[in-house]
Amino acid sequence: MKQENITAVYGAAHGIKGILDEVFYDIGKEDAFELELLKTTPSSALGSCRYKLKNAEDDETDYKRLLEVFKKYDIRYFFYNGGNDSMDTCNKISKYMQKSGYECRVMGVPKTIDNDLFGTDHCPGYGSAAKYIATSFMEVYHDARVYDTGMVTVLEVMGRNAGWLTAASALAAAKGNGPDLIYLPELVFDMDKFLADVERVYKEKKKVIVAVSEGAKLADGRYVADSGVRDSFGHAQLGGVAITLANIVKEKLGCKVRGIEFSLLQRCAAHCGSLTDVNESYEAGRTAVQKAVEGVTDYMVGFERAPGSEYKCNMKLLPLDSVANTEKKVPREWINEEGNFVTQEFIDYALPLIQGETRPLLVDGLPRFANLKKVLVEKR
Amino acid sequence: MKQENITAVYGAAHGIKGILDEVFYDIGKEDAFELELLKTTPSSALGSCRYKLKNAEDDETDYKRLLEVFKKYDIRYFFYNGGNDSMDTCNKISKYMQKSGYECRVMGVPKTIDNDLFGTDHCPGYGSAAKYIATSFMEVYHDARVYDTGMVTVLEVMGRNAGWLTAASALAAAKGNGPDLIYLPELVFDMDKFLADVERVYKEKKKVIVAVSEGAKLADGRYVADSGVRDSFGHAQLGGVAITLANIVKEKLGCKVRGIEFSLLQRCAAHCGSLTDVNESYEAGRTAVQKAVEGVTDYMVGFERAPGSEYKCNMKLLPLDSVANTEKKVPREWINEEGNFVTQEFIDYALPLIQGETRPLLVDGLPRFANLKKVLVEKR
Repeated sequence: MKQENITAVYGAAHGIKGILDEVFYDIGKEDAFELELLKTTPSSALGSCRYKLKNAEDDETDYKRLLEVFKKYDIRYFFYNGGNDSMDTCNKISKYMQKSGYECRVMGVPKTIDNDLFGTDHCPGYGSAAKYIATSFMEVYHDARVYDTGMVTVLEVMGRNAGWLTAASALAAAKGNGPDLIYLPELVFDMDKFLADVERVYKEKKKVIVAVSEGAKLADGRYVADSGVRDSFGHAQLGGVAITLANIVKEKLGCKVRGIEFSLLQRCAAHCGSLTDVNESYEAGRTAVQKAVEGVTDYMVGFERAPGSEYKCNMKLLPLDSVANTEKKVPREWINEEGNFVTQEFIDYALPLIQGETRPLLVDGLPRFANLKKVLVEKR
Repeated sequence: MKQENITAVYGAAHGIKGILDEVFYDIGKEDAFELELLKTTPSSALGSCRYKLKNAEDDETDYKRLLEVFKKYDIRYFFYNGGNDSMDTCNKISKYMQKSGYECRVMGVPKTIDNDLFGTDHCPGYGSAAKYIATSFMEVYHDARVYDTGMVTVLEVMGRNAGWLTAASALAAAKGNGPDLIYLPELVFDMDKFLADVERVYKEKKKVIVAVSEGAKLADGRYVADSGVRDSFGHAQLGGVAITLANIVKEKLGCKVRGIEFSLLQRCAAHCGSLTDVNESYEAGRTAVQKAVEGVTDYMVGFERAPGSEYKCNMKLLPLDSVANTEKKVPREWINEEGNFVTQEFIDYALPLIQGETRPLLVDGLPRFANLKKVLVEKR
């Protein structure tokens, strides 16, 4: 197959669900200008899903349906974009198509702010989220100093199992405007140690800023966020680790506290994106298409950092089954011995990823995001 | 007095407390470059306070002390910067100095993201916060649509008594990417009506975005934020109206919910400032100094919008006692009849205030905020 054999580009609505349901948008009918705006538009233009394919050996139903749809629409290139679960889906489909003898080139395109895909130096999306997080920490650092009273501010960052996003707060600390303490989910969260840490910094500075992963867990395996107060029915409260810890600090140390959750803001803040990240993300997609046209299949595009002091990132290819379902965590040696901060190695790793600025086209002082027509492909 | 008679500029640490404690920084010793960076540095470089002066008739202690300090340092110009409480302080000091026959020109310089100072079209700080809020709503609007499941997202915006900041979310709605429902503290929050509103939008769109003021109050005067669950000691939980309402919606309507609080982020997001706001803020301060040098005293600088369709804002002077302690709320006629949105008049009012972009100087991909030397003035 050659590039000229690509006669149409279809976008599946909500990932794999769109294929199963035969809901395709004809991307060829979109304006080039609007497609370009996708580079600075948050969220997923075509939607996402949380649909997990069963193993084909256990239940072939979905796979048969996928093959049927692929055949019906003559889908010969399949690109799937996302994090660990998406690469698992992509890998399973790739293997099934191979087994079925259906010729289709399958490529994974990484995208996850969690930065936890195996085998790649980093993931598209991470640099921009890290930039927003570090920037916001620097701003909150100043705000938290406005009064001359003591204050403990706990900020909660996304990351259930991997602490990459929370660690990004250290970039603010490297500029002298960041957290005093950082707790990643890679290590067990020790409440006594935490309270001792906070008390020590509080005594010294009167202002304490804490970065903590939403996924911080106690030794017994419970999330810290679940260790707080429950409502009258015994349900854990909505609201997470920051507010839980702020409440505990207030109760135990008696100081003024504030719990802040970045929540969705950290994964959709297109107004504070990293140009390095956006350029590399685009390059990852471009490489996937180019390689597939050249005949490559069953790989995910990954990033490889070139050796040397100057940052340079090359594309590489990773076998899909090496990527699927393997989470890359922050290495233990990038966390300090005490377990309450990260090391210079992490800073050196992350700082290049947030370089350069991108923001949406602005109209009337507000973002002008991509506005796709989403022309449905006629069902066959 | 003439400008050349100004021999030194002192900044009081933490507002009026710095005067009472004689903690002054010599602003003349700062680098011009760093002072310029203050335009894009969040928070208050000299600190703020929550210190309320008693009425001089009830207790003259603080006033005598202030007069003593003013005399000792030959302070003949006094500029005080802030919102309602600060203008109250400024007014009281002005009147006391007049009564005491101490020649000192006293000027209020407005600054409050709450936008609730009386007599001025708007307040410095509001445009930038409004821009951040509207931008973030637009981003969350996209993020909330990523899955094809229903979802109610409640976003909490600052404003105890005035809904200006919450109303700014309507700027996002005007671009088609904003909240479906907006509740301001100017009106009583009716829980049944709220639930009916959410249910109606949910049935129609499956996605509901709600903007609500932290200060939303029930008919009995309690904050909505206090109407939620209490901990085992009966204390109201930290965490506010968004999470409380999200919990209630989840319980009553059974849909997926998310509560998001912008928290401190909305008042320190210098990376998403309005150039119009920053320029006007500077102009307000400049006007205060110029007028004082010309002999004016006992006024606050305010903004007056020039008539006509093109936005233009002129400086005006407001007697301090007309400003002190009067809150300007969102007028009833700018809220829709149902009480769950704002009108086009509000959009027309607010949109010009967020025009133009400003962001900090960026070094290494992160803000380079002002770094003052804060040289202490020797105590006399």
